[in-house]
Amino acid sequence: MHIDLNCDLGEGFGVWTLGEPGTDDALLEVVTSANVACGFHAGDPAIMAARCSTAAARGVAVGAHVGYRDLVGFGRRRLDVPPDVLLQEVAYQVGALQAVARTVGARVGYVKPHGALYNRVVHDEEQALAVVAGVAGTDPGLALMGLPGSAVLRHAEAAGLRTVTEAFVDRGYRADGTLVPRGRPGALVTDPEEAAARAVRMVRDGVVASVDGGDVPVVAESLCVHSDTPGAVPVARAVRAALEAAGVALRPVAP
Amino acid sequence: MHIDLNCDLGEGFGVWTLGEPGTDDALLEVVTSANVACGFHAGDPAIMAARCSTAAARGVAVGAHVGYRDLVGFGRRRLDVPPDVLLQEVAYQVGALQAVARTVGARVGYVKPHGALYNRVVHDEEQALAVVAGVAGTDPGLALMGLPGSAVLRHAEAAGLRTVTEAFVDRGYRADGTLVPRGRPGALVTDPEEAAARAVRMVRDGVVASVDGGDVPVVAESLCVHSDTPGAVPVARAVRAALEAAGVALRPVAP
Amino acid sequence: MHIDLNCDLGEGFGVWTLGEPGTDDALLEVVTSANVACGFHAGDPAIMAARCSTAAARGVAVGAHVGYRDLVGFGRRRLDVPPDVLLQEVAYQVGALQAVARTVGARVGYVKPHGALYNRVVHDEEQALAVVAGVAGTDPGLALMGLPGSAVLRHAEAAGLRTVTEAFVDRGYRADGTLVPRGRPGALVTDPEEAAARAVRMVRDGVVASVDGGDVPVVAESLCVHSDTPGAVPVARAVRAALEAAGVALRPVAP
Amino acid sequence: MHIDLNCDLGEGFGVWTLGEPGTDDALLEVVTSANVACGFHAGDPAIMAARCSTAAARGVAVGAHVGYRDLVGFGRRRLDVPPDVLLQEVAYQVGALQAVARTVGARVGYVKPHGALYNRVVHDEEQALAVVAGVAGTDPGLALMGLPGSAVLRHAEAAGLRTVTEAFVDRGYRADGTLVPRGRPGALVTDPEEAAARAVRMVRDGVVASVDGGDVPVVAESLCVHSDTPGAVPVARAVRAALEAAGVALRPVAP
Repeated sequence: MHIDLNCDLGEGFGVWTLGEPGTDDALLEVVTSANVACGFHAGDPAIMAARCSTAAARGVAVGAHVGYRDLVGFGRRRLDVPPDVLLQEVAYQVGALQAVARTVGARVGYVKPHGALYNRVVHDEEQALAVVAGVAGTDPGLALMGLPGSAVLRHAEAAGLRTVTEAFVDRGYRADGTLVPRGRPGALVTDPEEAAARAVRMVRDGVVASVDGGDVPVVAESLCVHSDTPGAVPVARAVRAALEAAGVALRPVAP
Repeated sequence: MHIDLNCDLGEGFGVWTLGEPGTDDALLEVVTSANVACGFHAGDPAIMAARCSTAAARGVAVGAHVGYRDLVGFGRRRLDVPPDVLLQEVAYQVGALQAVARTVGARVGYVKPHGALYNRVVHDEEQALAVVAGVAGTDPGLALMGLPGSAVLRHAEAAGLRTVTEAFVDRGYRADGTLVPRGRPGALVTDPEEAAARAVRMVRDGVVASVDGGDVPVVAESLCVHSDTPGAVPVARAVRAALEAAGVALRPVAP
Repeated sequence: MHIDLNCDLGEGFGVWTLGEPGTDDALLEVVTSANVACGFHAGDPAIMAARCSTAAARGVAVGAHVGYRDLVGFGRRRLDVPPDVLLQEVAYQVGALQAVARTVGARVGYVKPHGALYNRVVHDEEQALAVVAGVAGTDPGLALMGLPGSAVLRHAEAAGLRTVTEAFVDRGYRADGTLVPRGRPGALVTDPEEAAARAVRMVRDGVVASVDGGDVPVVAESLCVHSDTPGAVPVARAVRAALEAAGVALRPVAP
Repeated sequence: MHIDLNCDLGEGFGVWTLGEPGTDDALLEVVTSANVACGFHAGDPAIMAARCSTAAARGVAVGAHVGYRDLVGFGRRRLDVPPDVLLQEVAYQVGALQAVARTVGARVGYVKPHGALYNRVVHDEEQALAVVAGVAGTDPGLALMGLPGSAVLRHAEAAGLRTVTEAFVDRGYRADGTLVPRGRPGALVTDPEEAAARAVRMVRDGVVASVDGGDVPVVAESLCVHSDTPGAVPVARAVRAALEAAGVALRPVAP
């Protein structure tokens, strides 16, 4: 048994960092895949290079975390980008990270949409197709990470891209397999031990306990831990330790 | 005898274009190399894709026109970017254009600094080294276009990059071989026939008439025509016609 | 009989201008109210100052043309800005223009939302209230210009702001009084004489011919002419000439 | 005896904050004047409103902390902005903050340049004049805060603006009264008790111990404490407590 562990990193800009200082560095000792922001919703060339460099030194896979062009909104706001423009915005971000990574001896293995774009390409066929075309047009060797059953993964497969499904160890699930929306009771799992136990069940048994009672099936090649909450590092460490204790090997799915 | 003819293109942003509408399209029928803005001083993913697509269709080479991160100042203002940051900003822009170009079947052959960065890396060793490291770190197969004798070309050669020297058919030269600063008498050559005659002398005789009287030697593998003046297209057409009439073949130096 | 004639101006950024060079200057000789972009979707401090200065010299009223914070999208993309943030974004833009105007001896008389924000506050109660609160909180002496019957004008009235209704001389109307969407037949009226005749009927008779046949009533204290189309200036001139010939005085409604 | 205590606040952007969370709030319980970033080097409308609101509730004066338009460089990079553009960029920022402040019941009392602009207008006559013209043109009732003996304060006085001199309790001074450059030994005073003792000597005796040995005279109507260092809050609290214990009243100089 093996699994990938991914998290979002490099989400600062200029003098600013997101979350507690040192979080990115600590997480790069735990995860096996780092989704690096590419400058549209967060990130700048210097931050991108620093994260790629550390990731490469630790054998962590690098992914392009592509988002809407909305710095002040952190890519969390729905944006009606015409598909042909979105295609190029995705290519631009991926290519920029590829070049920055190359200068520090790293390489980009996969792409994962961020925030509002991530949510939108679950259902929006046009934007999903645009993301896939931007990735495939840039480099057909890149994998695409996303939600199981999402439009973007379906189109990625059809385009011949490798796909990577993910599940969330620190988010609550409903009986239908969807996430409990943020702000609702049970939306977040902040206790490291609980998150760790959920991670093990996800990988070993393919299920997670839903907030409605009962288990729901979870299919995932990668587990996502968040980086922007105060307890992000302890949660990630507990998850990794529990997985290893359960005999699950951690390794990047798209190195 | 042969020569390359280059000009700056894609210098719009969002709804805006620079200069008269249709200028870029007309110039892409004349030049052999297009310096495409990469989003830091001008340009956006959609514009970059459109210019790369047209360039590829017409056999025009594509160069990454990299500039300081200063959209409102159009990259024309000196900026004290730390060298390690500048290196990554160059890589970011080059990689972004490479990916966008790839989606439309084009490829980037060379890099040319823009505006204040172009002027600065003539003499500034630190920034020149940073630009070279950004280019070489991204792709050692890229050529670097710049001023003959500039620090940036010297460092590019030392780093093993191919270099491309350029001269300006529509700018006045002084007896010491430097350009007449903009705003001074003789700074601009706007008459198409005069520009064309100068271009022919540059290529055939390796000289240009200086504003101080007498000829100065000019060494150039590429001739630059400007795109942001009202008469840009007639000047470029006259230059090309005169060169061809003089038996000079026009072809990209870094395809 | 009298009427106000308004148009959007100052829609450049840095080195870029929108539409044909000289359009703004020509329009400032025709209109009585200038909606000046405030830097979020277009415009920068230098452009704002230049337009305010010319407007003041010609007795043209200055309005703050406030938009979503989306430069690359020119404020034409729907954006889910939280109402408390939108309120402050409106105040920010209005105050910025007020200060710039003051430095050149002009003053801001009114506020008009731009693009996607304009369309949204026709129906969206939350965003309409936010715009009104931003304007009223900045200066309760400011008027608010918008579509007759829109949520934003209703809330403006309730908040004690002066309101200014507008109609469009160069847009087609449907039988229900709404505009023909751009891209549909009859959406644009580009013939100067036709636009002029429509303007006169709007003011004198309070009606406009609909694309469906028959007249629809139009209530407007201001007529809007567009500035971003090739024929903008001839249309504006023809409209003004026809109105004056019909005995309609042109004067700002919110000086 | 009385003195003003000022610090820089609101230096976040979008989701990002500068320094430790809660610093701004803690400092607004200690200082008497808050220099609020206006969106060009940091700050956005929502952050500006939040800081103005808290400042007003606590009787803290609000100043416009105006900077170069360089978000990614945090306004710390020298920028050759033409004086007529700089004038309008200052007016724009001041007016934006005035409006935002008004919506939450606060008002702007003074202006203080930030970062590279602060340093430049100590000596650069053109940029100093531009800043003064931007402030005076926006509102001649505003005060201007800066370094004693600086060009900007000299021009402000000549223009009839009220001026506010400041000294730095947490920075080392040299024998000639200038600051020890950052990065050199003695540049920063991080011990709260030492900073507090220096503050008291500055106010009571008009001197500060220099790094070269011996005292140098200090003239200041306001003392600046920094907000972007880990120990900012303890330093500010110690300074305030020591001043009060020494019988020095703390009050805004430009309310």
